[in-house]
Amino acid sequence: MSEEKRFDVVFKGAGTASGKMRNDISVEFSTMEESFELATDEGAFHGGEGSAPPPLALLTAALIGCIMTQIRAFSKRLDIPIGEIKVNATLHWEGRQNGLGPYVAAPVGFSLDVDLDSSASDGDQRRLLDAAKAGCFIQQTLKRGIEVSHRLKTSNGWQDA
Amino acid sequence: MSEEKRFDVVFKGAGTASGKMRNDISVEFSTMEESFELATDEGAFHGGEGSAPPPLALLTAALIGCIMTQIRAFSKRLDIPIGEIKVNATLHWEGRQNGLGPYVAAPVGFSLDVDLDSSASDGDQRRLLDAAKAGCFIQQTLKRGIEVSHRLKTSNGWQDA
Repeated sequence: MSEEKRFDVVFKGAGTASGKMRNDISVEFSTMEESFELATDEGAFHGGEGSAPPPLALLTAALIGCIMTQIRAFSKRLDIPIGEIKVNATLHWEGRQNGLGPYVAAPVGFSLDVDLDSSASDGDQRRLLDAAKAGCFIQQTLKRGIEVSHRLKTSNGWQDA
Repeated sequence: MSEEKRFDVVFKGAGTASGKMRNDISVEFSTMEESFELATDEGAFHGGEGSAPPPLALLTAALIGCIMTQIRAFSKRLDIPIGEIKVNATLHWEGRQNGLGPYVAAPVGFSLDVDLDSSASDGDQRRLLDAAKAGCFIQQTLKRGIEVSHRLKTSNGWQDA
């Protein structure tokens, strides 16, 4: 029996506010010493200038990209052939608001339609998709759930918040 | 007492594979009829060409952008002033792998350090951060958890998978 290996994947990000609603965000893939300059903005309806995609567009692309990457990576490892794969996603949330106060957000349902364009049997295609789901960092995070921890810079220094 | 309003937020995405590991992803903010062209890729270590950020970099930016956007939006609604806000994030996952098979992913911990650069009291700053956390679609999704549903295109058409 082969030994289990364990590895860490750590991303760090630093965001600063610019423009009306734009955020400039430097992301560092610490594990690989790679870095990326990203940004979010909002459309005019939400007080922004549309200079970058909104955060939820980045999340939608991240979820699709994550499962597609694992499908392609694990296709080789499992020797299950794929063709020109396509993934369509729908991410649905709701907000609830009393009067003009801040609203409260909640997920309603996320779904993915996966076309592997594969000559493999349906069973092998399912096996590949199952492996990709299990190996997709974003899907496993959504599935298990995680409470993001916060610290706030206060008059007494950094405090849990 | 004011009446509760409810609204939907729906994003759709369509991903196609290109390059070695690159994914081109069209994202549509259905609710607003806005669309965005995004992409993910991997570095050479993971078999990619580094032509776009990896999916987890998009997620990191999405999480930071989401909380910053809500802080700025709710600052006005709650009349709690903020300055040049800065948010630093660390997203930590682990993978576990037996031999050369597909690995299994899991979140370890996500944390955000929030500097509101505000003249408001510590209590008001906490109240603003609490509202932003409750209104951040991504944080609420992570907190509650959600099982992504899948359909696979099989020899018998689209099937749940």
